Amino acid sequence: MRKFAAEKSKNLLAHRKILAVGVRQPTASLISSPSQSLSHHNLLPHSSLLLRFLSTAAANTSAPSESMASDYSSTPVKIDSINPKVLECEYAVRGEIVNLAQKLQEDLKVNPDTHPFDEIIYCNIGNPQSLGQQPITFFREVLALCDHPAILDKAETQGIFSADSIERAFQILDQIPGRATGAYSHSQGIKGLRDTICAGIEARDGFPADPNDIFLTDGASPAVFTKPYLSITVQTKFDITTFVFFFQVHMMMQLLIRSEDDGILCPIPQYPLYSASIALHGGSLVPYYLDEATGWGLEVSDVKKQLETARSKGINVRALVVINPGNPTGQVLAESNQQQIVDFCKNEGLVLLADEVYQENVYVPDKQFHSFKKVARSMGYGEKDISLVSFQSVSKGYYGECGKRGGYMEVTGFAPEIREQMYKLASVNLCSNISGQILASLVMNPPKVGDESYESYTAERDAILSSLARRAKTLEDALNSLEGVTCNRAEGAMYLFPRINLPNKAIEAAKAVKTAPDAFYARCLLNATGVVVVPGSGFGQVSGTWHFRCTILPQEDRIPAIVCRLTEFHKAFMDKYRD
Amino acid sequence: MRKFAAEKSKNLLAHRKILAVGVRQPTASLISSPSQSLSHHNLLPHSSLLLRFLSTAAANTSAPSESMASDYSSTPVKIDSINPKVLECEYAVRGEIVNLAQKLQEDLKVNPDTHPFDEIIYCNIGNPQSLGQQPITFFREVLALCDHPAILDKAETQGIFSADSIERAFQILDQIPGRATGAYSHSQGIKGLRDTICAGIEARDGFPADPNDIFLTDGASPAVFTKPYLSITVQTKFDITTFVFFFQVHMMMQLLIRSEDDGILCPIPQYPLYSASIALHGGSLVPYYLDEATGWGLEVSDVKKQLETARSKGINVRALVVINPGNPTGQVLAESNQQQIVDFCKNEGLVLLADEVYQENVYVPDKQFHSFKKVARSMGYGEKDISLVSFQSVSKGYYGECGKRGGYMEVTGFAPEIREQMYKLASVNLCSNISGQILASLVMNPPKVGDESYESYTAERDAILSSLARRAKTLEDALNSLEGVTCNRAEGAMYLFPRINLPNKAIEAAKAVKTAPDAFYARCLLNATGVVVVPGSGFGQVSGTWHFRCTILPQEDRIPAIVCRLTEFHKAFMDKYRD
Repeated sequence: MRKFAAEKSKNLLAHRKILAVGVRQPTASLISSPSQSLSHHNLLPHSSLLLRFLSTAAANTSAPSESMASDYSSTPVKIDSINPKVLECEYAVRGEIVNLAQKLQEDLKVNPDTHPFDEIIYCNIGNPQSLGQQPITFFREVLALCDHPAILDKAETQGIFSADSIERAFQILDQIPGRATGAYSHSQGIKGLRDTICAGIEARDGFPADPNDIFLTDGASPAVFTKPYLSITVQTKFDITTFVFFFQVHMMMQLLIRSEDDGILCPIPQYPLYSASIALHGGSLVPYYLDEATGWGLEVSDVKKQLETARSKGINVRALVVINPGNPTGQVLAESNQQQIVDFCKNEGLVLLADEVYQENVYVPDKQFHSFKKVARSMGYGEKDISLVSFQSVSKGYYGECGKRGGYMEVTGFAPEIREQMYKLASVNLCSNISGQILASLVMNPPKVGDESYESYTAERDAILSSLARRAKTLEDALNSLEGVTCNRAEGAMYLFPRINLPNKAIEAAKAVKTAPDAFYARCLLNATGVVVVPGSGFGQVSGTWHFRCTILPQEDRIPAIVCRLTEFHKAFMDKYRD
Repeated sequence: MRKFAAEKSKNLLAHRKILAVGVRQPTASLISSPSQSLSHHNLLPHSSLLLRFLSTAAANTSAPSESMASDYSSTPVKIDSINPKVLECEYAVRGEIVNLAQKLQEDLKVNPDTHPFDEIIYCNIGNPQSLGQQPITFFREVLALCDHPAILDKAETQGIFSADSIERAFQILDQIPGRATGAYSHSQGIKGLRDTICAGIEARDGFPADPNDIFLTDGASPAVFTKPYLSITVQTKFDITTFVFFFQVHMMMQLLIRSEDDGILCPIPQYPLYSASIALHGGSLVPYYLDEATGWGLEVSDVKKQLETARSKGINVRALVVINPGNPTGQVLAESNQQQIVDFCKNEGLVLLADEVYQENVYVPDKQFHSFKKVARSMGYGEKDISLVSFQSVSKGYYGECGKRGGYMEVTGFAPEIREQMYKLASVNLCSNISGQILASLVMNPPKVGDESYESYTAERDAILSSLARRAKTLEDALNSLEGVTCNRAEGAMYLFPRINLPNKAIEAAKAVKTAPDAFYARCLLNATGVVVVPGSGFGQVSGTWHFRCTILPQEDRIPAIVCRLTEFHKAFMDKYRD
């Protein structure tokens, strides 16, 4: 009875919302109306465990909406006179699961007893500091000093800032024309900061880097996409933070794609930034599948087959995207595999677009990050032999500065006249915000042996990375212990991408509510545990297989509780739907 | 002879560039190929003054381009295989004048004697700190402390930071969930910062403000515009910095415009952000002209005529844009005029889009800034009577923090179901970078009487504003003293928009090189003096009249030299072209 009352009130609420907001029923598999989000509980009525969750959830007392349109009858803008495209992308743009999570979070705020959990745990996006990760002290010292250079000369500053942060701030300010940290900079970013980034790349790779090859970029907002993009955003919003390096990708796609006859080879599963950007520019995505059975291996022979198939259809394939370490798949490529990829691109005349934003995030002793540039140079390929672009972002690594909005790309192997065009495209863009530029130079050139901050810096860095490695292993083991779940290692990046063998009954139940089976699973998981993950269907997966992506970012002391909740939920779910 | 040699080498250079870069000849009036930019000197061969300039310019030794495509023959991307749209927007996207300025600046770097001036003075964009304006100490103190909160508790901090900056940083950090300044925030921005902004609005207006009405936004990049936008960018790039509040405008246009049958009333001349955004969303710009003869007055009866004309053509006019203080025109609206505008919007059922980003920049004692919200509330119109949006940015005012990328809009008079749609659109966007959000809260709530920083803060602010007022007056007087030039007062904002009565011979000369006459004038000015201004044709102007926009931002000690150069140039130009 209690449950019935809850369902009723929820349905009423959902109904009212539909009337008021004029929600349209979207059709794509990832999209769901609020009524679907709110009333799906009744799909799971027989599990006692879930019933307990549901009866707790019955106290759901979402704050009633304000009084509606009638009071505003004398204002000119009515719900039926706004752009219908805006209405159409109703909520789904934020990702169904994230919307539900935020709804539940509001519930908990109003009444902490409304759900069988006391908080929402966001394992959906790579936003480390939102989950308690602390920023690196040295980086923040330098940013603070650059924000307020007036204190650089003061005696007290030496008492509370490290000597090398003061020195670095002086260096950086000297590199900014007029020391104007409040003004816009060169279109590629401040030259001195690009020099510093190159020093870091050289130290990493052992090969020279040229500041003219560096394009410092800002976070670019999907909000300025024109309407055609909205339908793409639907599938990508859940992971919007990594869009910090969107501009880099966008610029390359804009350069390379002339029509739908131009194709870009992309991994499946893939972080959907690439599919979105290719679609935005009207090109063709040429998929190649990563092999789950070999730890998300990249088989060059397979990529070649896809390339040939595309060519036979008249597609002019222009570039190959490789994400290393992988997102959402977490694998780290072996150097020999990278050599094959470099040769393949060289032989087939493809630009190699290397997403290397997780270069610091490697967790297993048997794997190491090698930049594609280092690999190519080690093979003897010089600047004029292979076209190679490397993407990097300050949002990832051990620093995770998502709020700072910085990143760069290193562009090599393009003729001067092409580079001129790239410079032009960079000029159309606003330069990156100055703090983001400074931070990019810091992550690529952190304190060195002998610097005052060196020990504390390495201690902070190593603590974060080793903790991430432990979290990855614990979650991986927990997932592999679940019935019907297999999970490859998170060798790197910030994610696990387990495969779930869903019983037919679960698939049927999902179909009945017009939801992808993995989205259905993710939604049930969220409702039962407060844990937010991203359904695999948002990344692409072999037809008939189902996955979800889960970050390893919650703080370490929370991991046991997450494992416990996940295990309990999965057992109940399987008990309910087992064939 | 020396001149001839120079011309020849320049033409060769330009020619080589065209061959190498594959420049296409654009057709729009503001667009010019490098060869036009470089070889236009020969249009002015008879002025001895200009000849002197030219002979100096003859030493122009632009660094030769690197060796060309042949070396890169084994790389896959060729100039004729990139997106032709990228080629088409050749340089023009940056504004012809700015491109030429950067070219000259490069020349000066290589050889300081190449031109009759030793530096380029950028009077084209509102980017104050690039010209030496110092940031406000209190704002930077708080930003630094929020970047590095670890020092907040230390004794030394009290020695080098003001007590109120420390207190404010504590307050702000307490408002950020988990004190995570490195994570993303609520889609509308951090709630506590919106509270602070509202307190500032209330203090300014004397009427309540609601934090739910505030949308904190980031700078949005024109670079993510899709291809159709490129042709628009051509005319707008010169002033890209103010695009920091583009997202706000974009969001409103996205909401209101359904098709080309929806129109937005915009002032002419206008800062072209509005025309660009309307075009981007496929709507119709309905122009109304500001009256130069009455100090760029806004005649409501005139606006009404335009509205009726548009309606008679089947255009559904949805909103009125008012820029106050004006850009590029610098006028400040009288309160009585604002009341007429409010009544007009109310009666005609229009949303009032108030660009109030220069609200701090008023320079004349007989004018004062009043927000449209204050005016409307003073008239007795409440929340449910009129739909009103106010745009604000941290890039302007006396603070001029262009590098920080922050701003907000205050949205009132929209029904809850419309507000839900706005929230959704804000959610598609990334939240603003956290420093930008913090700064927006600071500019709207600076130190108060009794705060430790109050005196130094007001001294810094007043010094900047009174200096800007003096600069505006000096430049205005200088312009008005020139033959054939009339210039209205810069009552506010950061610009003068003088009208130049160009002789027919000058207009003919401009036509001969397919350039708008005012662009021709601006180009000659730049070549002769190094002073960069923006041709009026980029803003729209009454047909047959010619203007340019000149900022008042160069530091005060530079103004006499600018006046001197400008006067000397103008005299020579008129001597040459006088009918």
